[in-house]
Amino acid sequence: MKMHTVSFDIGKKPVEVPTGTTLVEAAKEAGIEIQQPCGGQGRCGRCVVKIEKGTTRIRSALNLSAEDIQKGYTLACQTVVEGDVSVSIPPQEKIQRRLVSDLTAKKVSVPEGYNYTIHQTIQRIRLTIPPPSMDDQTDDWARLKRALRQEVNIDEPQISLSLIQEIGSVLREGDWQVSAVINVPSQNSQEQARLIALYPIHLQQEIPLWGCAIDIGTTTVTVWLADLITGEVHAQVAEYNQQISHGEDVISRIIFSSKEGNEGILKGLVLETINTLIDRACKRVKIRPEEIYKATVAGNSTMLHLLMEIPATNIRLSPFITTINQFPKFTAREVGLDIHPDGVVDILPSVASYVGADITAGAFSSGIATTDINTLFMDVGTNGEIVLGTKDWLVTCACSAGPAFEGAGVVNGMRATKGAIEEVWIDGQTYEPNIRVIGGGLPLGLCGSGLLSLLAELFLAGVVDKSGNINQNLDTPRVRTGEHDTEYVVAWAKETGHSQDIVITHVDIDNLLRAKAAIFAGYTVLANSVGVPLESVEQVLIGGAFGQYINVEKAVEIGLLPDMPWETFHFLGNTSVLGAYHALLNHESRKKINEIAKRMTYIELSADNTFYEAFTSALFLPHTDLALFPTVAKKMTG
Amino acid sequence: MKMHTVSFDIGKKPVEVPTGTTLVEAAKEAGIEIQQPCGGQGRCGRCVVKIEKGTTRIRSALNLSAEDIQKGYTLACQTVVEGDVSVSIPPQEKIQRRLVSDLTAKKVSVPEGYNYTIHQTIQRIRLTIPPPSMDDQTDDWARLKRALRQEVNIDEPQISLSLIQEIGSVLREGDWQVSAVINVPSQNSQEQARLIALYPIHLQQEIPLWGCAIDIGTTTVTVWLADLITGEVHAQVAEYNQQISHGEDVISRIIFSSKEGNEGILKGLVLETINTLIDRACKRVKIRPEEIYKATVAGNSTMLHLLMEIPATNIRLSPFITTINQFPKFTAREVGLDIHPDGVVDILPSVASYVGADITAGAFSSGIATTDINTLFMDVGTNGEIVLGTKDWLVTCACSAGPAFEGAGVVNGMRATKGAIEEVWIDGQTYEPNIRVIGGGLPLGLCGSGLLSLLAELFLAGVVDKSGNINQNLDTPRVRTGEHDTEYVVAWAKETGHSQDIVITHVDIDNLLRAKAAIFAGYTVLANSVGVPLESVEQVLIGGAFGQYINVEKAVEIGLLPDMPWETFHFLGNTSVLGAYHALLNHESRKKINEIAKRMTYIELSADNTFYEAFTSALFLPHTDLALFPTVAKKMTG
Repeated sequence: MKMHTVSFDIGKKPVEVPTGTTLVEAAKEAGIEIQQPCGGQGRCGRCVVKIEKGTTRIRSALNLSAEDIQKGYTLACQTVVEGDVSVSIPPQEKIQRRLVSDLTAKKVSVPEGYNYTIHQTIQRIRLTIPPPSMDDQTDDWARLKRALRQEVNIDEPQISLSLIQEIGSVLREGDWQVSAVINVPSQNSQEQARLIALYPIHLQQEIPLWGCAIDIGTTTVTVWLADLITGEVHAQVAEYNQQISHGEDVISRIIFSSKEGNEGILKGLVLETINTLIDRACKRVKIRPEEIYKATVAGNSTMLHLLMEIPATNIRLSPFITTINQFPKFTAREVGLDIHPDGVVDILPSVASYVGADITAGAFSSGIATTDINTLFMDVGTNGEIVLGTKDWLVTCACSAGPAFEGAGVVNGMRATKGAIEEVWIDGQTYEPNIRVIGGGLPLGLCGSGLLSLLAELFLAGVVDKSGNINQNLDTPRVRTGEHDTEYVVAWAKETGHSQDIVITHVDIDNLLRAKAAIFAGYTVLANSVGVPLESVEQVLIGGAFGQYINVEKAVEIGLLPDMPWETFHFLGNTSVLGAYHALLNHESRKKINEIAKRMTYIELSADNTFYEAFTSALFLPHTDLALFPTVAKKMTG
Repeated sequence: MKMHTVSFDIGKKPVEVPTGTTLVEAAKEAGIEIQQPCGGQGRCGRCVVKIEKGTTRIRSALNLSAEDIQKGYTLACQTVVEGDVSVSIPPQEKIQRRLVSDLTAKKVSVPEGYNYTIHQTIQRIRLTIPPPSMDDQTDDWARLKRALRQEVNIDEPQISLSLIQEIGSVLREGDWQVSAVINVPSQNSQEQARLIALYPIHLQQEIPLWGCAIDIGTTTVTVWLADLITGEVHAQVAEYNQQISHGEDVISRIIFSSKEGNEGILKGLVLETINTLIDRACKRVKIRPEEIYKATVAGNSTMLHLLMEIPATNIRLSPFITTINQFPKFTAREVGLDIHPDGVVDILPSVASYVGADITAGAFSSGIATTDINTLFMDVGTNGEIVLGTKDWLVTCACSAGPAFEGAGVVNGMRATKGAIEEVWIDGQTYEPNIRVIGGGLPLGLCGSGLLSLLAELFLAGVVDKSGNINQNLDTPRVRTGEHDTEYVVAWAKETGHSQDIVITHVDIDNLLRAKAAIFAGYTVLANSVGVPLESVEQVLIGGAFGQYINVEKAVEIGLLPDMPWETFHFLGNTSVLGAYHALLNHESRKKINEIAKRMTYIELSADNTFYEAFTSALFLPHTDLALFPTVAKKMTG
């Protein structure tokens, strides 16, 4: 087979690939992940790259203009190598990829600030077993158990039928010298030890032990692949949750899954997403998925129910009850996860229908559960989950913000991907906007941070009043009455990627106000309910992908975040997967997450009398009570 | 003397007999020969007849169920006339079926003499669970566990994923009133409790609990379906093990299963056999298989390995090692058994490659493990498994008898089904045989008991000498030189069902001699190895289907059974399924079977120096040392 050299502008080294390799595959070989939301069918146009020189064959060029093609642009998934090739990856693609998650990371150390003793439950042990004879006809399994008792003091380990089926041949193949992989729960655990795998010893080499931490987000699924001995994270991969095609938020997914005939569909989709990610991570690190012996899973309660195909109906019906918060351990075979079939799947504990394992994991990894000072931890997404407390106490609540902050339920809303307006500035005199678009091209819509930014600017420029009404007396063509309502034009049709105006309507603004009011009311009511004034909160920790990219100043200006000094806010990124990673590597951490789940007091906001009042007071920009937002008040007067 | 009229349905005329005449005698008077393989001792159950009307007195009703007796069935040899009587003789077909097992029994009581406390592990419990509210949003599973803790003091029961998937809807369908089925192991057990099923309470009716005891024989599979609350056996069904098509004995099955491409075939066949039987039993009792929550399984080590698709190769290779003797508990789903998918499958413990769970179960149910007197227990089939001991000690061994006693490996051998010659008498003057055929039609071949009977008769008639050689100088056309060897013609072609001569050859006789010698050597070496002379053995318990139908006298004549008084021998039928039934109904019995498995000392005969000598000395009829068989010696001289 003829080999060709393919080099990428952002790749460290050229790679050698045979004729017919797609550019996506070649890029993967070079450690560069090119996104393919459409699954490599040449439909979405997201994998566009530029051929600087070399010979390729293009299978399909849908989504590309003749001019683009002439310039050398092509779809990486539809282009195969037929000679030496130089490829450059457009800068917008690089930016965009960072937004979803750090997909380019090849090897990541233990996250900074989180160095601690690795004390995890997966152990490997070499066993030398006295071979049987006519004088000792003890059966293989008893023989193996005898060795395990002597070596690691394990008495009656669990074992799957399929491993029992292998014992006889492995013992003999290894000439009674074997390596065992065992899950050994902590001493106080009620859980039994489990013999996961058994290998004949052929070489002196120790068998590698891998584990993965998984966060199932409503929008994005993240997998970290870690060496269980060193704790080092060798791959971090993320992808959109394929369930999105059946609903943007948990409520619509629950409704979809409850319809007759839809059983198992969402489970299948999220499993496909996770397994694709595991496969991708394994290929990058050059290991086999069977070498992963444990997976620790975080996610909100709905995501975890759907993963296990447990009906989630009662999560959305009053009084909002999950079927299960503390899952027993399962094997990967039972769950359908593509790691070692007898590998342990540890699903982290949830607290309530809307305070899931993502929050208990986040409460642990954010440090709120061990701090001395009053701390607010929030994970802002479709739902805002909020935790308030210190090492001595923790209260939590969830407020349904709606999907506006994720760009859904808004006329020109979209997810934070290429073409989304992510930041807006408005001239206080001309009311003309200045926008920044993800990927740098023509805008297609507004994502969460763009909406937030736009609302703050419209308010401070006086286009929108404190009630969210659009001032129709301004001298600008951008304010107009649309089909149904008043609206502000953010981008004219000729400036957009789809040749249609991009607008924000009065209804959109109402949605945003309700979303931010729900979150503001959430943490203020939570604070009041335990008699801790908001002023006494000394740090605000913000988790979740959304929290990673919002502009604090603007979030305060619209009254989403409390008016506190900049240094009060800490953006922690994906606290959920980080918590899962902790739980994977240290069973003391795992135990603490359990303790956190138990000691978190859940407060149901819809049952709190003061919530509605707090919510309605927060339906203004930034708030009815301006005294709560002194720095914003200053900007308004100034 | 008072005379009574006795009429038989198949007799030409009624006969007149005095009070006290047995039905066998009355039948003879009417020209009807009723079979009595046991010699009229009421032991073999082969002379069963039905009293249509009239007055009789029954001396013994061993071998008959209470229901059978109620229907009028009785043993002709044990029933005496006390008034006018009408008798019907069951069609031969029914008799034949009784040979395989009691397939006609519709409902059988707890086996006589085995009444004991039912103390089994499957419990049903009604739970009333406080419904959730906004003030108590505890998840369903925690709510259910709380109720289980309060009601039955179970802390963290195991639960399958598929049951978790049902919890939410069952709790609500039952309006928070449910019936739970739980497996609660005994307190000292390391095993965890398991929630097997959960039903909404609609009616006041208690849910029924069923269990089954299964014996997987190399030839026959037996299933007893029992009510776990009353202990009553409602159906006993048996069928040939479908694996037979791939080999008559365990060795040929192991070889078949080890060949590439044959994986799983034997598992599939035995599962099909068991599941068909379960289905048949359920239909008879009118229950659904899902109402069976526990199955206790006995069988030899090879059968149990094949059932679980565990490679059995090392069972037949020196030093003869099983993969597993003490199985963990499995769910029916894991095994593939068609009972409730979360039902518990309890596989009884084995001791060694050739002393399986059928023997530990048999050692328990036969009573050898609790007796004060020296007892020999043997299960004669393709392998003869032998246990010697008292309540204080137990030794065991297995000897490979070969399949001759099951009618295989012999020129005209066949299984004990319709058309098999089961008994032979030979005239000492003319050397002409008189045969009895199962089913009464034309003979097709010789089954184990027929071969045994034939050999004894040939020997006592002088056709065969003590070395097993056929005397060719006799004046009879029945002795001749066949294609390969000398042979004796048992039935001429014109008298058989397939129009071919039925013969026994010198090679066949050699096979039979080796089989009986192996068993004789087995129990004598076993006795010697522990210094217990055979003479001190006070009872011989014989289990297994073969043991149910052999003629003791003839078995002693060929030197298979030791020369002891008649009353020393007790035929117990299927001791294996009986042991499984005990284990099903009482966890103390189950524990005792475990203890038996542990305290049985296995003696490997092939490693015993004296075995070969004992074996070769026993290769004669009845034995080299005639002093060991005084009653046979008397017949030879007389």
